[in-house]
Amino acid sequence: MTTVDPQLSAYCDAHREAYLEELKAWIAIPSVSADPARAPDVRACCERLVERLGELGMQAEVLETEGHPIAYGQWLDAPGKPTVMIYGHYDVQPADPLELWESPPFEGTVRDGKIFGRGAVDDKGQVLMHLAAIEAHMRTRGRLPINVKVVVEGEEEIGSPSFAAALERYREKFDADVVVISDTAVFAEDTPSLTTSVRGLVTWEVAVHGPSEDLHSGYYGGVIRNPIEALARILAGLKDDAGRVAVPGFYEGVEEITPLQMVELRSLDFDEAAEAKSLGVSELSGERGRIALERMWFRPTLEINGIWGGYQGPGSKTIVPSWAKAKLTARLVGAQDPLRVRELVKAHILAGAPSGVRIAVEDGGDAPAVVMGREHPAVAAASRAMEAGFGKKPVYIGTGGSIKPVADFDRTLKLPQVMIGVGLPDDRIHAPNEKFSLSQFYAGIATMACLYDELGALAPGS
Amino acid sequence: MTTVDPQLSAYCDAHREAYLEELKAWIAIPSVSADPARAPDVRACCERLVERLGELGMQAEVLETEGHPIAYGQWLDAPGKPTVMIYGHYDVQPADPLELWESPPFEGTVRDGKIFGRGAVDDKGQVLMHLAAIEAHMRTRGRLPINVKVVVEGEEEIGSPSFAAALERYREKFDADVVVISDTAVFAEDTPSLTTSVRGLVTWEVAVHGPSEDLHSGYYGGVIRNPIEALARILAGLKDDAGRVAVPGFYEGVEEITPLQMVELRSLDFDEAAEAKSLGVSELSGERGRIALERMWFRPTLEINGIWGGYQGPGSKTIVPSWAKAKLTARLVGAQDPLRVRELVKAHILAGAPSGVRIAVEDGGDAPAVVMGREHPAVAAASRAMEAGFGKKPVYIGTGGSIKPVADFDRTLKLPQVMIGVGLPDDRIHAPNEKFSLSQFYAGIATMACLYDELGALAPGS
Repeated sequence: MTTVDPQLSAYCDAHREAYLEELKAWIAIPSVSADPARAPDVRACCERLVERLGELGMQAEVLETEGHPIAYGQWLDAPGKPTVMIYGHYDVQPADPLELWESPPFEGTVRDGKIFGRGAVDDKGQVLMHLAAIEAHMRTRGRLPINVKVVVEGEEEIGSPSFAAALERYREKFDADVVVISDTAVFAEDTPSLTTSVRGLVTWEVAVHGPSEDLHSGYYGGVIRNPIEALARILAGLKDDAGRVAVPGFYEGVEEITPLQMVELRSLDFDEAAEAKSLGVSELSGERGRIALERMWFRPTLEINGIWGGYQGPGSKTIVPSWAKAKLTARLVGAQDPLRVRELVKAHILAGAPSGVRIAVEDGGDAPAVVMGREHPAVAAASRAMEAGFGKKPVYIGTGGSIKPVADFDRTLKLPQVMIGVGLPDDRIHAPNEKFSLSQFYAGIATMACLYDELGALAPGS
Repeated sequence: MTTVDPQLSAYCDAHREAYLEELKAWIAIPSVSADPARAPDVRACCERLVERLGELGMQAEVLETEGHPIAYGQWLDAPGKPTVMIYGHYDVQPADPLELWESPPFEGTVRDGKIFGRGAVDDKGQVLMHLAAIEAHMRTRGRLPINVKVVVEGEEEIGSPSFAAALERYREKFDADVVVISDTAVFAEDTPSLTTSVRGLVTWEVAVHGPSEDLHSGYYGGVIRNPIEALARILAGLKDDAGRVAVPGFYEGVEEITPLQMVELRSLDFDEAAEAKSLGVSELSGERGRIALERMWFRPTLEINGIWGGYQGPGSKTIVPSWAKAKLTARLVGAQDPLRVRELVKAHILAGAPSGVRIAVEDGGDAPAVVMGREHPAVAAASRAMEAGFGKKPVYIGTGGSIKPVADFDRTLKLPQVMIGVGLPDDRIHAPNEKFSLSQFYAGIATMACLYDELGALAPGS
């Protein structure tokens, strides 16, 4: 069995306290990419990261994009060795609802062997695993066993709208043999995992406009199409009673999973009842006739992420509101075309619009699903490194999440990709009290340090 | 034709500026009954009103209730004359959305012959018409031609929850021969009107609880019942495609209007297309196969007043939200039983609840519809007074609004009631930029001054 080089391992173990402090410093920068008011924090986070990459001995710079900038660093002094691009993101999801956080979201707080804070695991902590592993190599050996390009972007949580254009603009900087991404979770704490598929993502915001202002519901109730009612009917019409999306053409490009995949899924220890209980619901739901892991990883979904309109304060206010809005996202699988799905859903919504209201649909996002091969030698190298770091051979899993750059790397650069994330399923990413288990964090650092050695042993261009 | 006593008329005309200043002072007190934070303002408004009633020469006091207090004043020095209770309310609707007001909601602002501000017409300005008319009588003749009890409550905009109990508690103070209420609008600016029916009102707040916290919609999209989706389906299921409420039993007690009523409705000059245009919608909507005035006054309705859940901020946040909520109200007509309707709708919502979420329904309100007779001599007196004040004989109309105390007077005191309001249909009550036309205000004061004389000419107890 592969083991982590003892010298690297000793360095990493000795610096745990420092890594933790560094993670706290990253969490303290509220780099919320969705919130225009946070743009200065997003840039500050990028600049600090570039500074840190420079401190590690890399040639580092801020790459400007049409949106939030990319932190970039390269170390290319390993001639004859593969070039590995390490991709991550420094931006984070919004922290609200703030009142549900047990400690401040932008203050890393350690409790029970976990660090809590927005971005702790998604993705600041996992980016930091690589910074720590690079540092371990540089400080113990003065060099890396591979050529490295570190690419940390600031728009992943809003769908990486500027990333594809940046790939074109800085094409030579993204030239590599393989991409390594640590932005996913393992299947369970005792089950290290490599992720081999991600779902795609597209978004909509639906606005239903009724009367030009809120009206008295006594005077006008019964003669005005209520915008909330119209929106509710539109949203209710998006799925059938079996939980299938009712938009014609939505499932084009979705393939049934193979019997072998089903065997793999069933071999994973996934207790639906226990999962439901831990999430606070009486049972798992969704598309009828399919098991939960299939629905999570290999079936598309259409979710309503937010809704608002009319009076939301204390007591009652008897109005027919002027408007109502909702935010929607779809997760895509297989060969579903994001642009076509966007159009189909938009057309379905507009076609179903009742009279007496005006519907506006804004759509966005262009991330197709990606399925990675398991044949590339880098995947086997990642498997060995993870076994070394966690003491157990990883399984192959999918993820229901979406990482737009994975699609960009696949489409534009046609690069093999290794998704080696170490988050836990209960890390509450995108939710209040996001956390990163310190044991996963430290084992992840050792894994990455070992991974570079394993990749360095491969032939270049392999 | 009856005319307003010239001495009263002269007094009223000479004091227009003072009335306007007084109305501004009332508007400046933000007596929003729905907002617990405004409770001190609500009480301050009541206390100021009691002080003002005392200044008019009335025996005045604050009547405490289980909720916001009632301002009460009486003048009973007209032996052998009828006792008239004048009912109004000093509480107002919330002012939000604040950003849509063209001048501050709690600052009476005159523009184009109208005074803008929350409560300008609903109901502070219309209560003030009576204070001004009483003042005119007292200052010119030193007395009133009738016995008067002024009852101005502070909970009308939240459904008068404490009023029925107050009626019992202060029974002797509410003893009267007839009730006069100025809290409605005329049919149109050139059509003075007396209102002879009000709709009832009941309320619900529906909460759909899903996972114990917001979840990542990539990881959990497809396996968790989305609370917004569940709520949308519940709300969409409340009406059928013809706009009829789909709750079994909802229409119990609703009677079809008579052929005579239909003739009256059709004789009113109501231009549906012009009305739609002025409200900013392409067409009026509602229950299929019925004309708009019938739907507004004589058909029940079920409206969604507000909805909220999940992420409502800028950009996107990819979550399956923990919960979603909506506020609903129904307007009732005829013999619909408010308590039964509350139960039926609640049961329908709970029965339709999907698995995987928990539904909670809070209900409230207990205002049945009331239909007033036109036979009482006070109605004819009101018609004469209105003709004197506005120069045109009033028509009889209904209102889609609800005034809970009208039901309490009907049920508990079994008193004849005269609804003589002078608001205009476009006064935007309950909405931003509520206003009161000054010509309606001043004609209303003259009308009320004349009304007291007309009522004084009736036999007591008639």
